[in-house]
Amino acid sequence: TDLTSTSSGPSTHVPATTRLEVSMREAAEGLMQTSSRGIGVDIEPIATIKLNDPDFESSFIQRNFTDQEIAYCRSEGGDPQHRFAGRWAAKEAIIKAITNCAPDSRNLWKGAGAPVNEIEVLPSTSGCPVVILHGHAAEVATAVGVSDVKVSISHSGEYAVAQALAN
Amino acid sequence: TDLTSTSSGPSTHVPATTRLEVSMREAAEGLMQTSSRGIGVDIEPIATIKLNDPDFESSFIQRNFTDQEIAYCRSEGGDPQHRFAGRWAAKEAIIKAITNCAPDSRNLWKGAGAPVNEIEVLPSTSGCPVVILHGHAAEVATAVGVSDVKVSISHSGEYAVAQALAN
Amino acid sequence: TDLTSTSSGPSTHVPATTRLEVSMREAAEGLMQTSSRGIGVDIEPIATIKLNDPDFESSFIQRNFTDQEIAYCRSEGGDPQHRFAGRWAAKEAIIKAITNCAPDSRNLWKGAGAPVNEIEVLPSTSGCPVVILHGHAAEVATAVGVSDVKVSISHSGEYAVAQALAN
Repeated sequence: TDLTSTSSGPSTHVPATTRLEVSMREAAEGLMQTSSRGIGVDIEPIATIKLNDPDFESSFIQRNFTDQEIAYCRSEGGDPQHRFAGRWAAKEAIIKAITNCAPDSRNLWKGAGAPVNEIEVLPSTSGCPVVILHGHAAEVATAVGVSDVKVSISHSGEYAVAQALAN
Repeated sequence: TDLTSTSSGPSTHVPATTRLEVSMREAAEGLMQTSSRGIGVDIEPIATIKLNDPDFESSFIQRNFTDQEIAYCRSEGGDPQHRFAGRWAAKEAIIKAITNCAPDSRNLWKGAGAPVNEIEVLPSTSGCPVVILHGHAAEVATAVGVSDVKVSISHSGEYAVAQALAN
Repeated sequence: TDLTSTSSGPSTHVPATTRLEVSMREAAEGLMQTSSRGIGVDIEPIATIKLNDPDFESSFIQRNFTDQEIAYCRSEGGDPQHRFAGRWAAKEAIIKAITNCAPDSRNLWKGAGAPVNEIEVLPSTSGCPVVILHGHAAEVATAVGVSDVKVSISHSGEYAVAQALAN
């Protein structure tokens, strides 16, 4: 049940790490030891997604979504604007759910302006969305003891909502 | 931990089953063995519920809600339109939460057009809604290892939202 | 731990009730006794918070929020109306999540008009909201076996939503 895409588990021989990684480890060591369960919710107006704006395409879609996500959102069977809004809400909900597992930790994320394409939300065989964490997002999850993230998405009327559960 | 309404557990001497039941068992056997915990969320515009339309009454209310649900939604103390919208969102959230437990399974539900009156959401003594699964919905839950479903509903302004947690 | 509507009958000394109430109780009694895990969701129009109205200030803000919550909602970096709406939704979601843990219990809360300032939602080091229960709210949580409550808040466009998880 490894959520990272690299699947390099913790080992005794730690390679050279950045200051950020050290800080994350220190933060993780200071956590409350109760449950690492966390939840996150997000609501986004669908109008947030301005698909007819070329600047929005390069500054928002290309920065925050992976190629597979973009291909899915633009595939047949659904409204791309709704789908992008739903996935954007999902990524925000996932960040909140992971953060929610470690309230006493300092903020481990890169900042409000950082792209969220390291949090990938793809369709599954069953039809529900599945979460794949890459790079820094996977490191944060590991630092706070999260090995499993579930997400659900809904969009209707003028809003998309998403919720996530991290364990 | 039996979610079915028949409570006939799995046995070595399997009686003649339908193709659907066989498929569900095969799907269940192929599941990831991690946690079967799943979540679901749904948002619905309250205007979706067109109570003044006789066609909507027969095609939507009568197909998707049980007699007890309809009696509750039309009882004193609340707006029927809001209550039907909230319960509709609840049923959708419950389907998602159960599906979310088994992302690698194929879709076990009957399809987008199938009625959801086998997923019953009733008020409890404490005031919170409780979930009772019947028929095919109970079979799907059993197939993916779900024995407990919780749901919460809210409606305010122009929207109803619901979330579900399956274990 | 049976979710069926069939099993177990009604109790012995049932007071005079309507047929609907009896049916609902019978259904509820068949529910599982397993986990005390509960979830709650709430959506609130941000316009619910009328900050320019002096009566609203005394009747709503002062009654329902603690000094620390009010200080946070009015601090730099966010819109007070959005923040109060989000925290109001959070308090409602928390009540639902705790209630959701014990569907068969009678309603333990003080009533719809009771202030909710005993449910305190404060920012944490990590940035996620944390829940602190005081007085009667803490007693209710203890009574239904809840020792941990997580909450998440989102506000965007014209709505605030929140979800809570009680364990």
